[in-house]
Amino acid sequence: MFEKEIYIKRRNSLKKKIKEGIILFLGNGESPMNYTDNTYRFRQDSTFLYYFGIDEPNFVGIIDIDENKEILFGNDFDIDDIVWMGPQKSVKQKARLSGIENSAQLSNLQQYLINNIKKGRKIHFIPQYRHENMLKLQILLGIDALRINEYASQVLIHAVADQRAVKSKEEVEQIEKALEISYEMHTSAMKMAKPGVIEKEIAGYVEGLAYSMGRGLSFPVILSKHGETLHNHSHNNVLRKGDLVVHDSGAESMEHYASDITRTFPVGGKFSERQKEIYNIVLSAQLEAIKFIKPGRSYRQVHLKAASVIAEGLKSAGLMKGDVKEAVRNGAHALFFPHGLGHLLGLDVHDLENFGEGNFGYDDKIKRSSQFGLKSLRYAKALAPGIVITVEPGIYFIPQLIDKWKAEKKFREFINYDKVDKYKDFGGVRIEDDVLVTKNGARVLGKKIPKTIEELEALSSA
Amino acid sequence: MFEKEIYIKRRNSLKKKIKEGIILFLGNGESPMNYTDNTYRFRQDSTFLYYFGIDEPNFVGIIDIDENKEILFGNDFDIDDIVWMGPQKSVKQKARLSGIENSAQLSNLQQYLINNIKKGRKIHFIPQYRHENMLKLQILLGIDALRINEYASQVLIHAVADQRAVKSKEEVEQIEKALEISYEMHTSAMKMAKPGVIEKEIAGYVEGLAYSMGRGLSFPVILSKHGETLHNHSHNNVLRKGDLVVHDSGAESMEHYASDITRTFPVGGKFSERQKEIYNIVLSAQLEAIKFIKPGRSYRQVHLKAASVIAEGLKSAGLMKGDVKEAVRNGAHALFFPHGLGHLLGLDVHDLENFGEGNFGYDDKIKRSSQFGLKSLRYAKALAPGIVITVEPGIYFIPQLIDKWKAEKKFREFINYDKVDKYKDFGGVRIEDDVLVTKNGARVLGKKIPKTIEELEALSSA
Repeated sequence: MFEKEIYIKRRNSLKKKIKEGIILFLGNGESPMNYTDNTYRFRQDSTFLYYFGIDEPNFVGIIDIDENKEILFGNDFDIDDIVWMGPQKSVKQKARLSGIENSAQLSNLQQYLINNIKKGRKIHFIPQYRHENMLKLQILLGIDALRINEYASQVLIHAVADQRAVKSKEEVEQIEKALEISYEMHTSAMKMAKPGVIEKEIAGYVEGLAYSMGRGLSFPVILSKHGETLHNHSHNNVLRKGDLVVHDSGAESMEHYASDITRTFPVGGKFSERQKEIYNIVLSAQLEAIKFIKPGRSYRQVHLKAASVIAEGLKSAGLMKGDVKEAVRNGAHALFFPHGLGHLLGLDVHDLENFGEGNFGYDDKIKRSSQFGLKSLRYAKALAPGIVITVEPGIYFIPQLIDKWKAEKKFREFINYDKVDKYKDFGGVRIEDDVLVTKNGARVLGKKIPKTIEELEALSSA
Repeated sequence: MFEKEIYIKRRNSLKKKIKEGIILFLGNGESPMNYTDNTYRFRQDSTFLYYFGIDEPNFVGIIDIDENKEILFGNDFDIDDIVWMGPQKSVKQKARLSGIENSAQLSNLQQYLINNIKKGRKIHFIPQYRHENMLKLQILLGIDALRINEYASQVLIHAVADQRAVKSKEEVEQIEKALEISYEMHTSAMKMAKPGVIEKEIAGYVEGLAYSMGRGLSFPVILSKHGETLHNHSHNNVLRKGDLVVHDSGAESMEHYASDITRTFPVGGKFSERQKEIYNIVLSAQLEAIKFIKPGRSYRQVHLKAASVIAEGLKSAGLMKGDVKEAVRNGAHALFFPHGLGHLLGLDVHDLENFGEGNFGYDDKIKRSSQFGLKSLRYAKALAPGIVITVEPGIYFIPQLIDKWKAEKKFREFINYDKVDKYKDFGGVRIEDDVLVTKNGARVLGKKIPKTIEELEALSSA
């Protein structure tokens, strides 16, 4: 964890914004995989990590604004726990590491809350995504688990989202540490992608690297010759010469900050001419979008910039036609680029997503579009220094979507279906980097990972 | 999945035992890691896999005994799902793969159940370990999620546990496939364990192998120079020459059958004399226990056999003293061997554990002991052909436990505390194989993984 001063500062800043009441942050418990005691790797809740830093299961943090104190609730270990799990610091000692003076055993939490609710004090909590925690809140607060998120505190949601959205120096450093792992994951995958290799041999290796060097994956690895499936988590294909592999993966740093990088590369070391043409359109879109980023500009504008570069490029390639501006305004390019340009990145790989995109990605000025493609943009608001966001345009040829639109005669004025039909075996291309919004523009974070055709061919053929 | 005939046969056998009513098997959903859409690797419920074989989230299987029919409930994909997740077979097609004629969309399940409950028909379900499924049953059956397991069907629990406990030929084959992965995981770890390496570098690598070659880990990797902590899942120590590493890990085959193997080996290739002495006691205990296994013999007897070998050995080493039989009867050896000899192995690494050990590991004839050590034995009943069980004795020097017993003057007639004190820096040794109970005895499953001191030193020094 960081120095305790960092957590104290973060909590103090939050207290000032919320002004009154008690804030209740549930840490995560273990998550059962196939029976109660066989659990997935423990992952602490990101907001709990942000304000308390304690990276172990079954803690609850209280910030009592009115009485200006914090309390950490947890359970001390007994000798049976020590035999099975090893010796542990006490709850009191852990609280101190986070700069908290008060601690108590978890069994006292319910009475503490009841006493304060009786006094008429407001209990703030954030939305829950783990069903176990929904049930815990049901027990603690007497609210139906299935309706718990309706009672989440809107003032707390906005305060936490605003605070976590802007990254401090030590947070950016952590993201760059995660990117060091990504560098190894991506360059290893490029070197391993020889004809005859099964995708999961590479996917398993990079998953192992993420844990060897950090805290494991920040999200399930996407590594597929079927890059046209955007979130493809199956890895059972055998790679063949001429395949294009989309590899989208990320790691967590020791403090659980995420990286998220995508590269697309050829199996066997060489792009075909057709692959080069599409690849370079996506690369231009990505580079232009990064150049376009600056404080005050909305991320929707940046998304539309990338969409325009893609539509222009596809027109040059003979896959689109007509007025490019009209095509983008109407969303015709979304046949090829059906997702958003990027998302916030931080302790969560889609940072703040559990606060609801309406609470951090859109505001009164920018409402979510209902247009196919643009509706999937997770963050549309104006950018500000300290925001870290992914820039990840792509071009995909999704046979089922092409067939559907063609049958519906959709956007026939913008799309050359006859030529597009010939690309149904193409797969997809996506290129993604993690970008910090600076005072004047943007900085691509981390060590440079091969990205141009020349760089990729040099590494893959090695 | 297996051929559909296997699932049909399993369901028919179950129907005969339950005789009447409707059996409701919930498959698992995705399990949120740090927000709703960032999920852990999907793991189907093992009982659902056993009877239906369908390895995807959000399915429900119904076995209607009275009407002698099965229904698979699930959701078909729409075009948005295909764009993000790729094309999928329909629920109807998936049902057919499992030999099921009837299928329906998930939204129809609740009405189906309500109609049948109204008719006074009994709905059988097994205990739940995922909080999401507890809440699903609350919605479907109107039972409080927090009390759902009180309503689980005892007749169903016993029938499923009895059926799953005895492994068929194709199940044993799957366990041996998982053991092929274990072979690679263990021999790789032995070769990697050089001085200066951090435990997690090895732990990450073997985790990656488990996914590259199969379905991933069957449980979190234990790989530690602090082998005295039985379930040590932290991997942050740097290995030094002279350390003894306990590596306990397992993989899942493509059909999700588990392996579970432990080896203990020295860093830098050579055991010290003190390490050799303790190691060979554990090895003798393991080999003697395996030899002792045969149908009809209770696993508690086998456990006590291993305990006796350990106590004898520790007496020879000067760490225990007095009457060995008395010492074992009183549980004095449990200072060094505080866990059970093994557990069932199958689709779950602790097979059937979510049915409650009282429902499969003990019966009217053999009640659970309350003695420290012996109380942790997960399976005590008589063995029968087809049972697969782990044999994993160990000797550990747990400083906190030694200090506690010494202070309490516990078993001073059996334990040489003065000598034991000198072993507080020793760590631990555990050796584990997976064993099939045969008609006349036992067979150690899988390819032989280095186990003698000579074999281990040959590999580690390579």
